[in-house]
Amino acid sequence: MTATLITGIGELTTNVARDGDALGTLRDAAVLLEGDRIAWVGPASDAPLAGGVRTVDAGGRAVIPGFVDSHTHLVFGGDRTDEFEARMMGTPYAAGGIRRTVAATRAASDEELRARLKGFTRELHAQGTTTFEVKTGYGLTVADEARLARIAAEATSEVTYLGAHVVPAEYADRREEYVDLVCDEMLRACAPHVRWIDVFCERGAFTPEESRRILAAGVAHGLLPRVHGNQLGPGGGVQLAVAMGAASVDHCTYLSDEDVAALAAGDTVATLLPGVEFSTRQPYPDARRLLDAGVTVALASDCNPGSSFTSSMPLMIALAVREMGLTPAEAVWAATAGGARALRRTDVGALAPGTRADLVMLDAPTRVHLAYRPGVPLVHGVWLGGDRL
Amino acid sequence: MTATLITGIGELTTNVARDGDALGTLRDAAVLLEGDRIAWVGPASDAPLAGGVRTVDAGGRAVIPGFVDSHTHLVFGGDRTDEFEARMMGTPYAAGGIRRTVAATRAASDEELRARLKGFTRELHAQGTTTFEVKTGYGLTVADEARLARIAAEATSEVTYLGAHVVPAEYADRREEYVDLVCDEMLRACAPHVRWIDVFCERGAFTPEESRRILAAGVAHGLLPRVHGNQLGPGGGVQLAVAMGAASVDHCTYLSDEDVAALAAGDTVATLLPGVEFSTRQPYPDARRLLDAGVTVALASDCNPGSSFTSSMPLMIALAVREMGLTPAEAVWAATAGGARALRRTDVGALAPGTRADLVMLDAPTRVHLAYRPGVPLVHGVWLGGDRL
Ligand SMILES: [Zn+2]
Ligand SMILES: [Zn+2]
Repeated sequence: MTATLITGIGELTTNVARDGDALGTLRDAAVLLEGDRIAWVGPASDAPLAGGVRTVDAGGRAVIPGFVDSHTHLVFGGDRTDEFEARMMGTPYAAGGIRRTVAATRAASDEELRARLKGFTRELHAQGTTTFEVKTGYGLTVADEARLARIAAEATSEVTYLGAHVVPAEYADRREEYVDLVCDEMLRACAPHVRWIDVFCERGAFTPEESRRILAAGVAHGLLPRVHGNQLGPGGGVQLAVAMGAASVDHCTYLSDEDVAALAAGDTVATLLPGVEFSTRQPYPDARRLLDAGVTVALASDCNPGSSFTSSMPLMIALAVREMGLTPAEAVWAATAGGARALRRTDVGALAPGTRADLVMLDAPTRVHLAYRPGVPLVHGVWLGGDRL
Repeated sequence: MTATLITGIGELTTNVARDGDALGTLRDAAVLLEGDRIAWVGPASDAPLAGGVRTVDAGGRAVIPGFVDSHTHLVFGGDRTDEFEARMMGTPYAAGGIRRTVAATRAASDEELRARLKGFTRELHAQGTTTFEVKTGYGLTVADEARLARIAAEATSEVTYLGAHVVPAEYADRREEYVDLVCDEMLRACAPHVRWIDVFCERGAFTPEESRRILAAGVAHGLLPRVHGNQLGPGGGVQLAVAMGAASVDHCTYLSDEDVAALAAGDTVATLLPGVEFSTRQPYPDARRLLDAGVTVALASDCNPGSSFTSSMPLMIALAVREMGLTPAEAVWAATAGGARALRRTDVGALAPGTRADLVMLDAPTRVHLAYRPGVPLVHGVWLGGDRL
């Protein structure tokens, strides 16, 4: 079993709360990795010495847990660069663009989709993301959804079945039939490959009633629910998510006081996706309001070719600080521990004995630099399951 | 002399205007580099074949001229992370923070400043910036300004004397004496190392009258003028810059109709620095208004520890598109050819026979992806003076 001692860490973010510091910050710290797990965390001066341990000197750099990106759509075909350009020149964002990607994804071979997802995986790792979720939702036939679920499962254990992304064009006049398909045959074809079920609960996609039925069908098949909600306007997505005990409701751009109160009282994480607001020129969600109400907030990229084609968790942190009222520490927590909670994972998003040895060394003395130096690639090194990439 | 043929370029941005396309775009193109210069540009099918030429296949990727960052402050000591954090939590931006960096820079050794600038140079190159300007302005004594000019000149030929950054604390009650020093002894000590003279013409820094005197003194010593103006409010900076024939006036956040008309009629580039607005939560300048009036617009980072600690030209492009009304093509032009005009350079910012072989291969099929994929490190390869970094 390989072991690595990383020492000389100027600022270590453990996310193990201590003395009122939710990020459990240690200065002049060290971390011992054994196999794919963290074996020890503490002051560098107390680091255990043992034979056969490779030592890496961080030279005063900051170390944080690897980013946990709990929301991506990375199995797709085709290209929508022209749509982005048109939107930047004034065409408003419309969710209908999803149908373009559906057509291109259906036309793509398994090999094309797999190669592209491999490219995105490399891109995510290089930017410090060590855990990521991937959704289906660009197939929207039984065979294509199952195919996307199978390909996604080769890249990550966090796969989400999103047959309820939009009603595909061929079912435009038969939406009830499509909901039946999503709840039955398509679900059965996808369930073996996925952990989660998700639904786009939004005007133009699925109603709260349809969404409830879809999630309940998934739960009956052993899947865990999560929701896309309240992105383009007020709606029932948040209330539904909390009522169903969903791990997370994602977007949360338009919230009523009742929505905030429900989130605060429940066990559902509010996952904010500022890349979407950046790339569609929508108003940003008010993260401060959520945090002040005691809601657990996560940050994710929503990386997809339509509304947010960025996979950069550091940019999500910078935008959360600039645009949404999070402090740099809150934003880093939301992009690591917050993402882990949104995926109901306790083995990632924190650095403590027994957690996965997934961590990022920054080319900076503090985690604040992720917001202070927006756009600058600050990832100096990434360890994934104890191995340096 | 080494020669490299880059072929298989899916989209080549030459910035040599052609058929109404200011970016002179070629598809399925090739570029021949000989020594430190471009020898040939054209369709891949017409590429000259010669012995001893190394061939690189771009695999359909986009290639653009290297970024020209015409405005940075990268010779400094100390740390202002805490000030950034406080600002994000509500403390408004004030230019007075510059004095903190002045104190730390005076205390830093030549070796410290040089090592830090070398680190920034690597960081710039890795992000595709192949030409960059560096200003003095954190010394503000004769000896310290000369020292910063000398160290900056080791890293770039585009060094700017900015003794007129702020009036240092020790001259607070004797500002006229300080202006005398800037115009005389300090200027003479710096002139041998620099090409440019700059002044921070802004309420709280230098008046238009002081600024005119300072620039005129520099011009009398053979330096070329440029101006920091109209950043924090309306003022005389833009009018002064145009009247003095400055190569560029930088910031341009608050402009009157007369300012825009003067820029349109004159020969001065308007250099916009959206990293500052991002990092200080100021309103963004209206680039669309400038372009529609026929003003030449450049984008630069203003990388400095106070108001914009980013060196990412891709982020400047993404912000210019999201926040300032530029199209992706206009933003890429402004970050390459625009920067070259702001430095009065014709050998960089374009790819044509005789220009410097400074270019960037993107991990993307089009330059639009620089805005479409914000925060994602898209630099696949950088050639600087014909050599791949
Ligand atoms: Zn989504
Ligand atoms: Zn500046």
